[in-house]
Amino acid sequence: MQSFHPPRRILMGPGPSDVSPRVLAALARPTIGHLDPAFQSLMEEIKSSLGRLFNAPDHACVPLPAPGTAGMEAAIMNLLEPGDRAVIAINGAFGGRMADMADRAGAEVTKVEFDWGLPVDPHQIEEALKSGPVKVLAFVHAETSTGVRSDAATLCGLARKYGALSIVDCVTSLGGITVDVAAWDADVVYSGTQKCLSAPPGLSPIALSPRAQKAITGRKTKVRNWLLDFNLLMSYWGGEGGRTYHHTAPINALYGLHESLVALFEEGQQAVMVRHARTHEALAAGLEAMGLKFLVAEASRLPQLNTILVPEGVDEAAVRAHVLKAWDLELGAGLGPLKGKVWRIGLMGSSATPWHVRLCLTALAEALAAQGFKADVAAAQAAADAKLID
Amino acid sequence: MQSFHPPRRILMGPGPSDVSPRVLAALARPTIGHLDPAFQSLMEEIKSSLGRLFNAPDHACVPLPAPGTAGMEAAIMNLLEPGDRAVIAINGAFGGRMADMADRAGAEVTKVEFDWGLPVDPHQIEEALKSGPVKVLAFVHAETSTGVRSDAATLCGLARKYGALSIVDCVTSLGGITVDVAAWDADVVYSGTQKCLSAPPGLSPIALSPRAQKAITGRKTKVRNWLLDFNLLMSYWGGEGGRTYHHTAPINALYGLHESLVALFEEGQQAVMVRHARTHEALAAGLEAMGLKFLVAEASRLPQLNTILVPEGVDEAAVRAHVLKAWDLELGAGLGPLKGKVWRIGLMGSSATPWHVRLCLTALAEALAAQGFKADVAAAQAAADAKLID
Repeated sequence: MQSFHPPRRILMGPGPSDVSPRVLAALARPTIGHLDPAFQSLMEEIKSSLGRLFNAPDHACVPLPAPGTAGMEAAIMNLLEPGDRAVIAINGAFGGRMADMADRAGAEVTKVEFDWGLPVDPHQIEEALKSGPVKVLAFVHAETSTGVRSDAATLCGLARKYGALSIVDCVTSLGGITVDVAAWDADVVYSGTQKCLSAPPGLSPIALSPRAQKAITGRKTKVRNWLLDFNLLMSYWGGEGGRTYHHTAPINALYGLHESLVALFEEGQQAVMVRHARTHEALAAGLEAMGLKFLVAEASRLPQLNTILVPEGVDEAAVRAHVLKAWDLELGAGLGPLKGKVWRIGLMGSSATPWHVRLCLTALAEALAAQGFKADVAAAQAAADAKLID
Repeated sequence: MQSFHPPRRILMGPGPSDVSPRVLAALARPTIGHLDPAFQSLMEEIKSSLGRLFNAPDHACVPLPAPGTAGMEAAIMNLLEPGDRAVIAINGAFGGRMADMADRAGAEVTKVEFDWGLPVDPHQIEEALKSGPVKVLAFVHAETSTGVRSDAATLCGLARKYGALSIVDCVTSLGGITVDVAAWDADVVYSGTQKCLSAPPGLSPIALSPRAQKAITGRKTKVRNWLLDFNLLMSYWGGEGGRTYHHTAPINALYGLHESLVALFEEGQQAVMVRHARTHEALAAGLEAMGLKFLVAEASRLPQLNTILVPEGVDEAAVRAHVLKAWDLELGAGLGPLKGKVWRIGLMGSSATPWHVRLCLTALAEALAAQGFKADVAAAQAAADAKLID
């Protein structure tokens, strides 16, 4: 057994995205204790910068000590008690996961399902909300399995109208497109670190509204999880009146998240979103010039996750294997019903740059040519460049 | 908001322990995808080296993607269903936590309680096991809140005798004292990375026996956690037949764990335990020469966690504040009923060295002197040295 030295990779799948050298360097700073006064000030900075990033000044914002799925599980398990009714929108893999978790929480689950590749339709959600008292409406803002954006503002508004608490999965959206928790008046919103924040996977930033906190402290039964029970977590992360030991925070991972937030605010939240939008437009123009098509209609596309239909006669996995081998480039496969039918191309965080766009077009054109699908790579690059050069 | 640069610290609390430069360097290696073939081989090496470290050749061994408490929660939540009976030994904070979790799993919990500072008494456990069918016996091998070792071999033997599955908390023991899962015939054994393995906090290595796996696949109800449901986790970590997407593994944290395992096997498992034992003997001799006393009787002491009674008239917190400020040295406080009454001094992993012992004795003597408690530091160092020099 020897030290592990990872191969060189360029990450353009659905996450993790490329982690910048400054964030990698932060991970390697010496570990200190999780009760150290210096660590406490780091925690406070992370909490307040997450509040700024979510635009959630009145919410409690903390990073949970586990991957993005922990945010989902914390939201569902803390808000739902046995017998509560939950309406869950399913338009991809992650909505389905929410429904499974709500079932484990003992809730009565009403699933509202949509074809993969479509956004959540607010009209169908309203029908479900109308049919009786609903404790929680849960949906995915940016479906990582399909590359679709749903209308979070409208859906959260419907939750408010019918007296339900909203849970919004922003794992793939935070830092890439607008996430405005205050404007949405959303209750529980969570994300991951390995997408548009470009920190390594392993943490889940989450925001809880005062309404959600009140619902949690007023529960009749204990939360079914211990590690993710907000009644316990908030006294560990809560600044005033000292902290109560709960778990041992993942110190070095938090150094990395902190540094990725410093970098994001240095560049500017708006500038980061513009960068995501521009690189997406360039990639889309290039791919279309090559004769490739998107799964998702233009109005609902996520700039940071481009889901491309595999042309007839092309072997999906062989193309990914080719670009990985010849170009060190990772692209994502399809999940569930989209397996073998799409590629998922991420332009997230540090991976949303013009050179990622150019590399991807060239590598993909070469791999497609090896499969007999001829694509004009010069035309593709020219189409992309036209979007990148003012 | 600026980049965070941690202060220099020497970590001799109850964890995290000092992380070596080689493990810190491993954390900073470039992130690759969690479905990358190269990452798959890293996972296989981690699985097999954990099997070797636990001495659990027939168990499934994986690192859970969250701190040590996740191992506890996974063990309890996967083995217990509503109505199952669990006998839980409580001789410190972590036994109490297990009972809380078992209650959340819907189990009928029989608590067997002991004074903090005592090991679990097998006779009292046997009485509880005798009184009816028991699904699970859970106990803590090395109580981090008190510094006590319990007799895991005898307790696991009792579980087998009465047809119960055993859950053994080895968060603080793994890598510091003998953990022999095969000899104990234990069912679910878990640990953390930030104690004697000297990797940063954030992961929880766990081992499951074939009996435990059978009990989990044969459950009548779904596991109440999703992220820690072994039915889902094992197909993500399972090597044969490909992996099923579950969560996104914390890639860089796993680089760190891998490197800490490489370092441990380079030094040798036996040599590492001898180092823990010798530095403990030196520290104990030095502390006793200073007139300080242990909470725990010699036969049950953990070498890696030394719980020292605060002398009368000495302000516990002031001493810790002094050594942190003047010596950059972190010592641990007491928890629960031991708050203000003890210090917990860790000699874990990279923190178990002769110079840590010497530094601790000098710093502690200085801080005690500032409180009016005179200690002969030269005699203390001589007593420690006598144990370190052959």
